Amino acid sequence: MALLLIIILGLLSIVYGAWATKSLIAADAGSARMQEIAGAIAEGAQAYLRRQYTTIGIVGVVIFVLVSYFLGLAVGVGFLIGAVLSGVAGFIGMNVSVRANVRTAQAASKSLGAGLEIAFKSGAVTGMLVAGLALLGVAIYYGVLTGALGYQPGDRLVVDALVALGFGASLISIFARLGGGIFTKGADVGGDLVGKVEAGIPEDDPRNPATIADNVGDNVGDCAGMAADLFETYAVTVVATMVLASIFFAGNAALSSLMLYPLGICAICIVTSIAGTFFVKLPASQSIMGALYRGFGVAAALSLVGIAIATALLVGFSTEYTTAGGTTFSGWDLYLCAIVGLVITGLIVVITEYYTGTNFRPVKSIAAASVTGHGTNVIQGLAVSLEATALPALVIIAGIIVTYSLAGLFGIAIAVTAMLALAGFVVALDAFGPVTDNAGGIAEMAGLPAEVRNSTDALDAVGNTTKAVTKGYAIGSAGLGALVLFAAYTSDLNHFIANAAQYPYFANVKLDFSLANPYVVVGLLFGGMLPFLFGAMGMTAVGRCAGSIVEEVRRQFREKPGIMEGKDRPDYGRAVDLLTKAAIKEMIIPSLLPVLSPIVGYFIILAVAGKSEAFSAVGAMLLGVIVTGLFVALSMTSGGGAWDNAKKYIEDGHHGGKGSEAHKAAVTGDTVGDPYKDTAGPAVNPMIKITNIVALLLLAILAHSAG
Amino acid sequence: MALLLIIILGLLSIVYGAWATKSLIAADAGSARMQEIAGAIAEGAQAYLRRQYTTIGIVGVVIFVLVSYFLGLAVGVGFLIGAVLSGVAGFIGMNVSVRANVRTAQAASKSLGAGLEIAFKSGAVTGMLVAGLALLGVAIYYGVLTGALGYQPGDRLVVDALVALGFGASLISIFARLGGGIFTKGADVGGDLVGKVEAGIPEDDPRNPATIADNVGDNVGDCAGMAADLFETYAVTVVATMVLASIFFAGNAALSSLMLYPLGICAICIVTSIAGTFFVKLPASQSIMGALYRGFGVAAALSLVGIAIATALLVGFSTEYTTAGGTTFSGWDLYLCAIVGLVITGLIVVITEYYTGTNFRPVKSIAAASVTGHGTNVIQGLAVSLEATALPALVIIAGIIVTYSLAGLFGIAIAVTAMLALAGFVVALDAFGPVTDNAGGIAEMAGLPAEVRNSTDALDAVGNTTKAVTKGYAIGSAGLGALVLFAAYTSDLNHFIANAAQYPYFANVKLDFSLANPYVVVGLLFGGMLPFLFGAMGMTAVGRCAGSIVEEVRRQFREKPGIMEGKDRPDYGRAVDLLTKAAIKEMIIPSLLPVLSPIVGYFIILAVAGKSEAFSAVGAMLLGVIVTGLFVALSMTSGGGAWDNAKKYIEDGHHGGKGSEAHKAAVTGDTVGDPYKDTAGPAVNPMIKITNIVALLLLAILAHSAG
Repeated sequence: MALLLIIILGLLSIVYGAWATKSLIAADAGSARMQEIAGAIAEGAQAYLRRQYTTIGIVGVVIFVLVSYFLGLAVGVGFLIGAVLSGVAGFIGMNVSVRANVRTAQAASKSLGAGLEIAFKSGAVTGMLVAGLALLGVAIYYGVLTGALGYQPGDRLVVDALVALGFGASLISIFARLGGGIFTKGADVGGDLVGKVEAGIPEDDPRNPATIADNVGDNVGDCAGMAADLFETYAVTVVATMVLASIFFAGNAALSSLMLYPLGICAICIVTSIAGTFFVKLPASQSIMGALYRGFGVAAALSLVGIAIATALLVGFSTEYTTAGGTTFSGWDLYLCAIVGLVITGLIVVITEYYTGTNFRPVKSIAAASVTGHGTNVIQGLAVSLEATALPALVIIAGIIVTYSLAGLFGIAIAVTAMLALAGFVVALDAFGPVTDNAGGIAEMAGLPAEVRNSTDALDAVGNTTKAVTKGYAIGSAGLGALVLFAAYTSDLNHFIANAAQYPYFANVKLDFSLANPYVVVGLLFGGMLPFLFGAMGMTAVGRCAGSIVEEVRRQFREKPGIMEGKDRPDYGRAVDLLTKAAIKEMIIPSLLPVLSPIVGYFIILAVAGKSEAFSAVGAMLLGVIVTGLFVALSMTSGGGAWDNAKKYIEDGHHGGKGSEAHKAAVTGDTVGDPYKDTAGPAVNPMIKITNIVALLLLAILAHSAG
Repeated sequence: MALLLIIILGLLSIVYGAWATKSLIAADAGSARMQEIAGAIAEGAQAYLRRQYTTIGIVGVVIFVLVSYFLGLAVGVGFLIGAVLSGVAGFIGMNVSVRANVRTAQAASKSLGAGLEIAFKSGAVTGMLVAGLALLGVAIYYGVLTGALGYQPGDRLVVDALVALGFGASLISIFARLGGGIFTKGADVGGDLVGKVEAGIPEDDPRNPATIADNVGDNVGDCAGMAADLFETYAVTVVATMVLASIFFAGNAALSSLMLYPLGICAICIVTSIAGTFFVKLPASQSIMGALYRGFGVAAALSLVGIAIATALLVGFSTEYTTAGGTTFSGWDLYLCAIVGLVITGLIVVITEYYTGTNFRPVKSIAAASVTGHGTNVIQGLAVSLEATALPALVIIAGIIVTYSLAGLFGIAIAVTAMLALAGFVVALDAFGPVTDNAGGIAEMAGLPAEVRNSTDALDAVGNTTKAVTKGYAIGSAGLGALVLFAAYTSDLNHFIANAAQYPYFANVKLDFSLANPYVVVGLLFGGMLPFLFGAMGMTAVGRCAGSIVEEVRRQFREKPGIMEGKDRPDYGRAVDLLTKAAIKEMIIPSLLPVLSPIVGYFIILAVAGKSEAFSAVGAMLLGVIVTGLFVALSMTSGGGAWDNAKKYIEDGHHGGKGSEAHKAAVTGDTVGDPYKDTAGPAVNPMIKITNIVALLLLAILAHSAG
């Protein structure tokens, strides 16, 4: 009954998506020239995604077969649902986005408010679909398993199937994040180097053969990539919270309602997020950021009420619950934990804005350091990127302490669930970015009047901030979500060990997660290494792709001298094609790193030392990935955002403005920040969670084995 | 009796130092102009160190009083010994170095071999004094406490006094590392920006008012700073190993010999290191690196024999030992652990050379990326810096696993001891760098013939590699050494809890170091944050100092236009003075971060949650600092070295050579790498250990309190 209501609320997101898409398509798509450009972008983005999904499909089928073989078809189907829905969310989002860009450019030629409306609505479609499809996938499959198929809510098969669903989402996510990130930044860095620096032509100039690729990149990286990322974090967090509930309340009468509680929070917040979108309207002050924050504020405030209702209906404010481990808490405590989750979201938004906004010390300090050259710009940028990790870490630490004191590990899980319940709205803020970025590009290439470009530039600048804020949010929630996964790993392991009669593989395993155990130290170091190595691979890949774009553009300029004079048409498709192949090739090995590490790590330590040591080391490895991953990702995304806006700050007329030596130094910083903030940094998110979720699946598979 | 022999062997280092210094001073000090320049460098360096030690002295006196008040005078005196000897090692090393630079320049005007001999001998004085004074300090004070004062080897007072000795060394070390690092890189970055980039004059040009400051920086940063750093790692590791022995073998008849064993390893290796120095002779191939590696190889090979002798005499190869925790191992096992330590040293040297040497992929890839601009140079440099952490981490992981399987935690401690036993020789390799760097500067400023500069440049290039190699070694050993300290923390804590009757503060404390404990996660995150924040502070400080140098030099050029024409003499002293004040000011707050963090962290968690949780969180914090600190430090030092040598590789005529666009991009990378590799990165070493050692002292103080 409650589940049915949850599913109905989830379906609202699809209804919203269909309605918003319809009203978007109905908007004016601009001149033939504009449509031609938009068509080229759409074609490139679709070609890229087709290829990406084909490649992922092959990996996916192999894993589907493996999962089904080891854990049964029901679990394999879970994997499939997660993977397919994540792909669908990214695919639809991207398709809406490539239609909205040209319409935003056209609307912006009428008014700023009209441009904002189209761009934001397009982001909202992606956002609601991400949240809605993730929720529906988990809720419906859970309903099928526990209803039609007759399993009990806490059955191992149900748990395994949900975990596999999360794994499917994660797998798509890391490929999409990394592949899209490499594509977009390869195009951006390469195009800028050869266009702005060598040929001296402005960004988005139609003479640059990499221009279309750059715009395609915005869609496949910032839109489809981010959609897959948050789909994954959302699905995985809900799943992990349900798994925790199933372990903590095994055999308890309240099991079913506590497993439904996270789904309920998410369902109600889809409604509040949709309601929030209607409050995004340009105010008289013309402040775009103000319009977005007003909508977000409404969504958050309504969520406070909505979660209270979900709490009252599903768990009851005054009911007391006691976990298998003996922690006792009430519905009130859980509600307070959810509020903490919302507060953490708010604080992380504020902190990220401080570190990446042009009004504050960090960005200004990078701009000031640009005056003395490229070197000092980069030094100061790195200093800011390192520093930017501290406050979010302290917020997360405080959040852990408060929610744990309120309701134990389950309290932490509920806080993250509440954080992510607003993901629909947050993705809307993010997906709005690439649309306005594209709109600016289309306006430039189609030669629209300067005031249109001014409107799209204003939208784009806000898009940069919202992109940075979303990344801070994605990483903060991913870090906390991964902690929940880690808790699931330890709880699962303890469960198997305690029931070794049923799971013979775990007979005589003695878990020692103490920091004094050297295998724990080994695991922490090994896990801690992964984000660094992964980051290195991502950065190298972008460097390599950018290099090949530089060579391709140089070749076109050389072979067709008419391009620079505006007589010859550059071959945009070749650049897109080249990047597509390169990005797909480059994404494979780094994506497999987190998939294989827990497995390889487990079997190596197993061979060297034994089962108990191997389980301890793998557990510690999970935490090691979380700890360094959080800092690496935070420093990369904040640092990159700060570099980007330091450049914008100078372009706004400070320290000599555009064309000055300081500006050149700031362009260098921005180039460095690009793969930091859009490739390596955000891809660390899914990487952290894949490592954790693969470890959970490994446990499940070992539990099925004979021992 | 054994202790007496150890002290006698330790005294050999002083004898060697006196002999080598005497023969250095006797060498030809060159022309009056050369001596004048050298005099200015020496004066600046002495002025800086005087000021630095005065400032540290004030902090030191406060801490001495606090330690003596809380833990008694004998412990306070231990702190004093560590602090004073560390300062003495740095001070003497720096004084020898500022005399050797001019003599190296003069000798290089005769032959490369003669230059190498002087430079290396000067480095060897610093190296042997570092190892010798550290060993003598620990051995003699241990002898006094257990002999004249009549304490038992395992008494708490002895343990506390030794830990305080380590703390004294650490405290000097972090100030010296950070202050010296900020000074040297502020001068280097600022001088290069305003000289090379703005004024277009070469490095070390006498017209640049920051030139002397740059040379002073080499001495106070690379020489005195590194000396203090390795003095600290050496002293702390020996102390931590002794403390572990005192805990593991409390009440065991073998206690005394196992506590002497690390001292014995170190004593014998001082002899083998001295022997090795005599094999550093330029071979017919004129390979400087070959000469250095031959000496190092001889020292390492002799150490294998020497440690075998120490093992036979002190612990016996066939004797079996059993710790209080029940781990059993033989003298053979300990010997094998020592060999593992030497192997780790060798592997880290090889890996660091791979990542920072001009013959291999990483440096070449940065050089190649410079062709497409500043941005791609920095991107590739960051990629290399991230990647360079992986192999050293795997070596350390393998080392932990092997030595732990051989002889438990004590085996890890012995391996680190053996690693550090060669510190005398390694510091010699490092301290050789600034001497040759200075010699080149003096040759340039005094207008010596070009072939002299060629010789000093050849020496300097090798110096760059040895500096990078030493840093890799310092960080690897610091990471492992910190793990031993962490083991001492957990063992100490368990000891206090088990004897709560005697230590009432620890009554009812239940230690839960399990990763499943959220306070452990909180501690790991908090500790993990510190190296990032600390690195940010170091980078910012260098940026600020460099900025003030740029302004000072611009001012001098403006007010005395004759400087650029070579008619007016720049005011070198003002630049030195300005940097001295700035560096001292900037070093204070970051240095206090690791001192205060464990204390503040403990009391906050104590207030929020309770004693048990606070002890768990602080323990986890120590490990968090080690894990992220290791990666941050490794990535910064290797990345910086790679950037530096990518520039040199281009200057050697690749990708267009000096003056090309690629070279300009490589100069930017080098500038970014400077504070990475010489300020923030290396200062993370002492920072990691201070955090750990302060936590140990905190335990000691709490153990003294009423409860």
